[in-house]
Amino acid sequence: MSTLRTALTAPTQYINVNGINYAYRRFGKPSEFPLVGFQHFTGTLDNWDPLILEGLAQEREVLIFDNAGVGNSTGETPDNVADMAHDAVDFLNALGVYKFDVLGFSLGGFIAQYLAVKYPELVRKLVIVGAAPQGAKVLEHFPELIYNAMQKDPEERFLYIFFTATTTSRNKGKETLKRLFTRTEDRDKETAQESVLAQMAAITRWGADPVTMDLKMIPHPVFIVQGSDDKMMDSDNSYALFKQLSNAVLTYYPDAAHGSFYQYPQRFVNQANDFLNNF
Amino acid sequence: MSTLRTALTAPTQYINVNGINYAYRRFGKPSEFPLVGFQHFTGTLDNWDPLILEGLAQEREVLIFDNAGVGNSTGETPDNVADMAHDAVDFLNALGVYKFDVLGFSLGGFIAQYLAVKYPELVRKLVIVGAAPQGAKVLEHFPELIYNAMQKDPEERFLYIFFTATTTSRNKGKETLKRLFTRTEDRDKETAQESVLAQMAAITRWGADPVTMDLKMIPHPVFIVQGSDDKMMDSDNSYALFKQLSNAVLTYYPDAAHGSFYQYPQRFVNQANDFLNNF
Repeated sequence: MSTLRTALTAPTQYINVNGINYAYRRFGKPSEFPLVGFQHFTGTLDNWDPLILEGLAQEREVLIFDNAGVGNSTGETPDNVADMAHDAVDFLNALGVYKFDVLGFSLGGFIAQYLAVKYPELVRKLVIVGAAPQGAKVLEHFPELIYNAMQKDPEERFLYIFFTATTTSRNKGKETLKRLFTRTEDRDKETAQESVLAQMAAITRWGADPVTMDLKMIPHPVFIVQGSDDKMMDSDNSYALFKQLSNAVLTYYPDAAHGSFYQYPQRFVNQANDFLNNF
Repeated sequence: MSTLRTALTAPTQYINVNGINYAYRRFGKPSEFPLVGFQHFTGTLDNWDPLILEGLAQEREVLIFDNAGVGNSTGETPDNVADMAHDAVDFLNALGVYKFDVLGFSLGGFIAQYLAVKYPELVRKLVIVGAAPQGAKVLEHFPELIYNAMQKDPEERFLYIFFTATTTSRNKGKETLKRLFTRTEDRDKETAQESVLAQMAAITRWGADPVTMDLKMIPHPVFIVQGSDDKMMDSDNSYALFKQLSNAVLTYYPDAAHGSFYQYPQRFVNQANDFLNNF
């Protein structure tokens, strides 16, 4: 038996596209459509929960990457979601990936929506975790929330953003944080400050700019996941997103914040695999 | 190998409690906690989708019954949810069932909430489909909606109440209706008009009476299921219910009305079994 690469062992690979060197990892069961992960604000290859990636990789190929300017990827991070999506499409096409499933987390969930509207033929199904539709008012508080988070030490910052204040949720957060550091070799470097600021601009613009996309036009199956208490996105926005889509399944988890799928990794994996395999 | 009773072959049994003869059926894999089905307005043993019951019965014992005055059960149907719950508890205790999981559909979902608050020690987990919390304003339109439904022939009435107006949803409804008539022998009789009127009073009172229950006190795991377009309950009310519970998972299905689990029987069975087994 050959040893399959896993989330923890897959080497970081690179491909040069439009002068940008993109870092990525591929692993899991070979499948017709890879599941491509679109990461949250500042997040790199190593901010994906390996437990979740491995659960998904049992049933399909998983492809994660650093978008332009993020982590180990070179290039300039755009200050808007549209250009982040264009960069991602160029990267994927260069790899020969012309049809894929999307796992979009937070900022990655904004890019997911943009892809479904603007590149409908490239996308098969979408999983959107902890996100909001264009025009979400709550995002005007995003810089303030991040500023507050930065006053805390790294562990408290992680818990503050992704988990609720209950002991149960915080303990799940500490477990998650350990998992994020399971991989010790060939790790990604942190995203540079200039890129972080560009992402912050992109996120606040997603909430502030005029709404240009008609989500009702998205025919793809979409699986939306959210926690009961996501203060960054406002949990209500996932229901608002659901109501604008024609073919979405929405699930909320209890006592959970922005990192709902970190908190319930096995529930999420079961539901996401069922959605991607059967819906 | 012994042949297990199934949803389609389990005989209707009877037990006399407080002078009421309760009709019920039990089947499925023996389990520590049976899943007890609480049925919708007018519904009898034969209004449960056998495909759903069988999927659930693969992993646990299922117990369905006609509450007082419903279907083949004798007795008087109460005009309020509380007394329906008391009747059910008397019936279950007489069978020796002192702890159980709940599957509450519509009116049955109201009873489920009441049981969790007033008999917390009897209930392990709850699955609530197409329901609303106490005080749901939309229920003041319930008699009008039923009156409109009664103007239609039986098939159209079923589709009007439980499915959306799209061809996809209506076709799923026609398939469901066929399944409800798969069982040909030992069927239940229809619920008598007096009982139907008592249930109508109970449902409108659930929306109109002062809210007496603090759902935040429910510690049980709850799985809430709803369609995107349930006009009877107003789909928003499932999110409102979720927000009042401390340990609930909520899932919405697309292009679905009051009969969301009829429309997606396999998705529902997978999620409900996962919830009942693992959460």
